[in-house]
Amino acid sequence: MKIAILGGTGDEGLGLAIRYALAEDEVIIGSRSPERAEAAAEQVRGTVPSGNVSGLGNEAAAEQAELVMLSVPWAGLRDTVTALAPRLAGKIVVSLVVPLQFGKGGPHAIRVEEGSAAELAQQLAPEARLVGAFHNLSAHELMEPDHDLGCDVLVCSDDRDARAQVMTLSEKIKGVRAIDAGPLAYSRYLEDLTALLISLNRRYKTQSGIRITGIDVR
Amino acid sequence: MKIAILGGTGDEGLGLAIRYALAEDEVIIGSRSPERAEAAAEQVRGTVPSGNVSGLGNEAAAEQAELVMLSVPWAGLRDTVTALAPRLAGKIVVSLVVPLQFGKGGPHAIRVEEGSAAELAQQLAPEARLVGAFHNLSAHELMEPDHDLGCDVLVCSDDRDARAQVMTLSEKIKGVRAIDAGPLAYSRYLEDLTALLISLNRRYKTQSGIRITGIDVR
Repeated sequence: MKIAILGGTGDEGLGLAIRYALAEDEVIIGSRSPERAEAAAEQVRGTVPSGNVSGLGNEAAAEQAELVMLSVPWAGLRDTVTALAPRLAGKIVVSLVVPLQFGKGGPHAIRVEEGSAAELAQQLAPEARLVGAFHNLSAHELMEPDHDLGCDVLVCSDDRDARAQVMTLSEKIKGVRAIDAGPLAYSRYLEDLTALLISLNRRYKTQSGIRITGIDVR
Repeated sequence: MKIAILGGTGDEGLGLAIRYALAEDEVIIGSRSPERAEAAAEQVRGTVPSGNVSGLGNEAAAEQAELVMLSVPWAGLRDTVTALAPRLAGKIVVSLVVPLQFGKGGPHAIRVEEGSAAELAQQLAPEARLVGAFHNLSAHELMEPDHDLGCDVLVCSDDRDARAQVMTLSEKIKGVRAIDAGPLAYSRYLEDLTALLISLNRRYKTQSGIRITGIDVR
């Protein structure tokens, strides 16, 4: 599958690019700057020499891909999706975006009027097949290609087929189990949970993730 | 320890009463109706014949206990805590309360102006030592006295000593690991997560819970 990772020059985007290059998918890293996108692609090819990885501007990346991951900062989400909406129509668009602010008490979720970042993106690109997923994976661990993540990825969408495809996609990452988290409105809980996990990372000096108990591991 | 469980006639309260009766703590079930509280205590004694369990009105239960658990419905939280505030002063008060509403898309968290149910309770009872915990335990599994829960209880409070005490308390339940979830403002994530877990229970026909990965199980 041809996967674009917009905002793919950040650690989370790079980590996913490494994992999908390993899985032999075609990966296009998107950035506002095509030069930075190509530099990031070069870095991924350094880790995965066999990988089919290129770097492009966000617009060209979205245009060429079959599936688009939004790994842009919350502050840039609205402008990015508004500009790209025509190119996202009909495609599966996975939002990894987490609306976070950092205060003295630690990281906290920003309350989003539309419900969640994923629902905002859906409103801005109504013909895209929005999916919320991958919020809670450690960028650090994704970037170590042999590391077994040993955690769940919760996937939500109003489009059942898109949800199923992204669940399958997420299980290509070593040690990941996909959980069907229901409609896109559940994205809010997945996004917000990230604030808690980041605060746990600091307190326990670890890279935390979650597992849902009571569901048999496949 | 002498533990009052207010609203302890519901399944969650009954389940906790059974577990702490088993742990040889003294349990006082509180209810608006002393008769219903005593009937619930009778039920707990039926499951744990050795248990030291009684039933009282909420006010008397709060008065006599060293530690108070709030297991009342969200709709009753404000009135209950307002009425009992003088009796909660100086005591550890654990909020299990989850502000939930059920719509056609499934259960969803109600956004609380004060941040969370636990923070609202803290505002209404400023001298209580508020702790948020136990939101995500299956009532059904708590009520089976031999069942190993195999999940984490995340505990948050602005009072470090109270937080530590409730972490110790939570690990008296078979299979529970306590996680320090930081200040009381993190209660919001623990409360909200419950909406997601209830929706997973329906989808997967299970009793789900959570484990934080990346933290070694003690």
